[in-house]
Amino acid sequence: MTKNSTPWIQTVSLEPPSIKDNTADTDRLLHALSLRLNTIAVHIDLDLIRQLPERLRQYGYRIRSILWKGRQRWHLLEVTAAEDSRIAAGLAIDLGTTRVVLRLLNLATGATLAESAFDNPQGKIGPDILARIHFAEKENGLRELNERIVSGLNSAIAHLCMSQQLEPEHIYALAVAGNTTMTHLFMGLNPRWIIREPYIPAVNAPGTVKATALGLQVHPRARVLIFPNIGSYFGGDLIAGILYSGIHHNAQTGILVDVGTNAEVVLGNKNWLIACAGAAGPALEGGVTRMGMTAGPGVIDQISLETDTLEFNIHTIDDLPPKGICGSGVIDLAARLFQAGMIDARGKLVTAVCGPRVKTIGGQLHLVVVPAEGSDTDSDLTISQADLDSLIRSKAAMYTILETITASVGVAPQDLQSFYVAGTFGSFINPASAITIGMLPDLPLDRYKPLGNSSLSGAALALQSDKYHDEIDQIRDRITYLELNVNQDFMNRFSAAKFLPHTNTKLFPSVKTVQK
Amino acid sequence: MTKNSTPWIQTVSLEPPSIKDNTADTDRLLHALSLRLNTIAVHIDLDLIRQLPERLRQYGYRIRSILWKGRQRWHLLEVTAAEDSRIAAGLAIDLGTTRVVLRLLNLATGATLAESAFDNPQGKIGPDILARIHFAEKENGLRELNERIVSGLNSAIAHLCMSQQLEPEHIYALAVAGNTTMTHLFMGLNPRWIIREPYIPAVNAPGTVKATALGLQVHPRARVLIFPNIGSYFGGDLIAGILYSGIHHNAQTGILVDVGTNAEVVLGNKNWLIACAGAAGPALEGGVTRMGMTAGPGVIDQISLETDTLEFNIHTIDDLPPKGICGSGVIDLAARLFQAGMIDARGKLVTAVCGPRVKTIGGQLHLVVVPAEGSDTDSDLTISQADLDSLIRSKAAMYTILETITASVGVAPQDLQSFYVAGTFGSFINPASAITIGMLPDLPLDRYKPLGNSSLSGAALALQSDKYHDEIDQIRDRITYLELNVNQDFMNRFSAAKFLPHTNTKLFPSVKTVQK
Repeated sequence: MTKNSTPWIQTVSLEPPSIKDNTADTDRLLHALSLRLNTIAVHIDLDLIRQLPERLRQYGYRIRSILWKGRQRWHLLEVTAAEDSRIAAGLAIDLGTTRVVLRLLNLATGATLAESAFDNPQGKIGPDILARIHFAEKENGLRELNERIVSGLNSAIAHLCMSQQLEPEHIYALAVAGNTTMTHLFMGLNPRWIIREPYIPAVNAPGTVKATALGLQVHPRARVLIFPNIGSYFGGDLIAGILYSGIHHNAQTGILVDVGTNAEVVLGNKNWLIACAGAAGPALEGGVTRMGMTAGPGVIDQISLETDTLEFNIHTIDDLPPKGICGSGVIDLAARLFQAGMIDARGKLVTAVCGPRVKTIGGQLHLVVVPAEGSDTDSDLTISQADLDSLIRSKAAMYTILETITASVGVAPQDLQSFYVAGTFGSFINPASAITIGMLPDLPLDRYKPLGNSSLSGAALALQSDKYHDEIDQIRDRITYLELNVNQDFMNRFSAAKFLPHTNTKLFPSVKTVQK
Repeated sequence: MTKNSTPWIQTVSLEPPSIKDNTADTDRLLHALSLRLNTIAVHIDLDLIRQLPERLRQYGYRIRSILWKGRQRWHLLEVTAAEDSRIAAGLAIDLGTTRVVLRLLNLATGATLAESAFDNPQGKIGPDILARIHFAEKENGLRELNERIVSGLNSAIAHLCMSQQLEPEHIYALAVAGNTTMTHLFMGLNPRWIIREPYIPAVNAPGTVKATALGLQVHPRARVLIFPNIGSYFGGDLIAGILYSGIHHNAQTGILVDVGTNAEVVLGNKNWLIACAGAAGPALEGGVTRMGMTAGPGVIDQISLETDTLEFNIHTIDDLPPKGICGSGVIDLAARLFQAGMIDARGKLVTAVCGPRVKTIGGQLHLVVVPAEGSDTDSDLTISQADLDSLIRSKAAMYTILETITASVGVAPQDLQSFYVAGTFGSFINPASAITIGMLPDLPLDRYKPLGNSSLSGAALALQSDKYHDEIDQIRDRITYLELNVNQDFMNRFSAAKFLPHTNTKLFPSVKTVQK
């Protein structure tokens, strides 16, 4: 994050009033700001007008203004003495179903001050969106869900500010990106109709809301930009992700894949954007993410194989003794097994090659990845045939979605010039391994770009400049949502993708295995 | 008030959502309204978004919307069933220093429902603006002044609504016109700098404010348009008056004179507007209005004279026994006396003509207008030489202001095509009498147009159509404020105007007296 200056902090020296120019204090200041910002509309709340005459005289008409831009107008949120060097802060929030992440920024420069995260306190009510929507229909259910997330945020904000020796009142602007349901629960909107045909949110584009109306304990005049959604299944978190990826600016077509609780895909360039959400139909039952455990300390995230000895070299997060394998580890493992001929093109364990490493547990084949003596759990860490079957379905689903969305606009997956992978998944996954198993298309590796928490980073961009506010609306308006029809075409593609790397190996020329 | 339809109430039948059009409820409604209103910006408060999904379904997507227009955007304030026939009300308020007048309207048609008035409860703190501004500087002084006017309004609103079997919550839009200080006290703004050089208000153009922010007990989402001011001495009441007079539309130059606590004058046409406020300098000490008592039941407002017998024919308000004379009565009286030769061109009583009707009381000449036996007070109703001297100064001041402002743009008072007289004064005054004494220019009588309470009527116009909102801003931006310089020119004019009708009788060709 470079120390660019944002438009939010404007230091203004006003000509003091005189008999020749008796413009009122408020109008004098707003006029100067509107010239500076090249806008006609700068709004000021009544309670600040009430303080303005004394403050302007106290500061000798030389002031620092703290501003924000709503959809139709700028907001003058605070004035201080021109010399005031106290930090005016902004807060970007990624409102995740499972985890909520906050990034505190210096509003003047856009520089990050600190980050923190907490488990969404609604998780105790229901782990997933559906459970929470049903809970919201109970008496006071919506209120409880809303209070949980708002008080969770207030508590996290207080701690985050304390770590920076700031007060929550020093936060003037917030940008919040979440999926459609989380955004509804945060705003106190009933999500009832999100899950009922024809799946209608209460609002698509909430725009800018006063923080106090949302119950947030920050500056009393602070404003909150809430990212818009496209519909019940394509939320503000993804709009933020697109904003951060920049695919909407590129001349060449790129793709953004966000694998979180769901898998969402956006394809496009500066002229058009097309999107679909992955959990569509029975073929994808189980989802792309039902692979391995959640990434965390001691979890295997990378695996390689000594080709002579068929010994695994594992890497765990924080280099702790291994206690399980996460999604990226499972993909690495499958790729290595396939390359070494330990699984065949259908993903079945080849016992002749695997040797004594294969055990039968509960009537099912398991491959020991880490023997009990090397593991943190005092038992073998294994991957079962069922796990591998599940991985094959997941990777086939992923590739089929990519094929379907690209085919819908006459592009081949292999033609994509940039491939952005968002989320924790994107940070840990090894694209080469994903290509080897045919989960991702066979592109030169440098076209793969991990984005990290793109929802949070997109929200943070909204705190850098008002130009991003316009882009957010433009992205929302420009996206065509592709309903994934699980028809015969889709099922044919899915069947073809259930082989490693694919039935049509010409699609994966770079994948070399001992089986070829 | 005709039953035109206003833009505030829009009945909309929305296409219910479907799989083919999954636009969210809020966006669906706002989009339909923005097409209807030909605007891109319709704002909706969060608490209404929260209710919208259930309401739209309950009403079958056929709804009545209640709207208002702020400066940069429309506001959707409420939705009801399309068939709902309950009245949505608007309230125009003339926020007078002495008296506050309310007009309740049907927001759908603009038709007046009822009016009421009450004495400004700040009057007990200080009768005039200056006393109140000083009081506002005491501890809690501003708060007390603000609470007095706000609670006075809330109580009047409750009564007015009750008389119409409405609830205050049925009032959705308000328009408030008052002088600059009254507007400040109403908004809780410190008026301290209004009376200190260089006389700077806290705000010129407050625009639209939420009623709740002002403490008004009406609909919780109601909005209040507050008329802008030009400066400390030219307030929103006058902007409202100009709006109501329409002089800003006319091709020919007209004038608006508002004689209230102060005397303000606006001259102009569709191309330009020039304004001045009358209480300027020692020459006008005492003001134009320090004539007679306040109009009210039993007060003489018209007087004529039997030319043969020199008997007065008096008319009192409500035809009650006379108890005093108000300003318009004094002007009538002076005109009759002058025409009959009972006062001379300097306004001095001519005892030879007046005969026994003149008495000396306390060493000063008095003319008996109504003998004790005919009066309600059991004593003679008289006018003293001092009263007449005061009238001469007042009328000279009035004419001098008119001459000065017209001269500033090269127009003669006699060239004015329309002469609007606002306020109670304008409703009661007999222009012929005012011309006879040289207070008003010698124009054909049909050019004189009384406007009544033009501040209230202008505020009511803002409740008729959004086009008036734009006009309000245009009027404010177009006015040039003329500082009345009491220089040698002014004093020369003033001296010349201290004769009846004027030193230069050619200016008053229609005035015939026995003295000619």
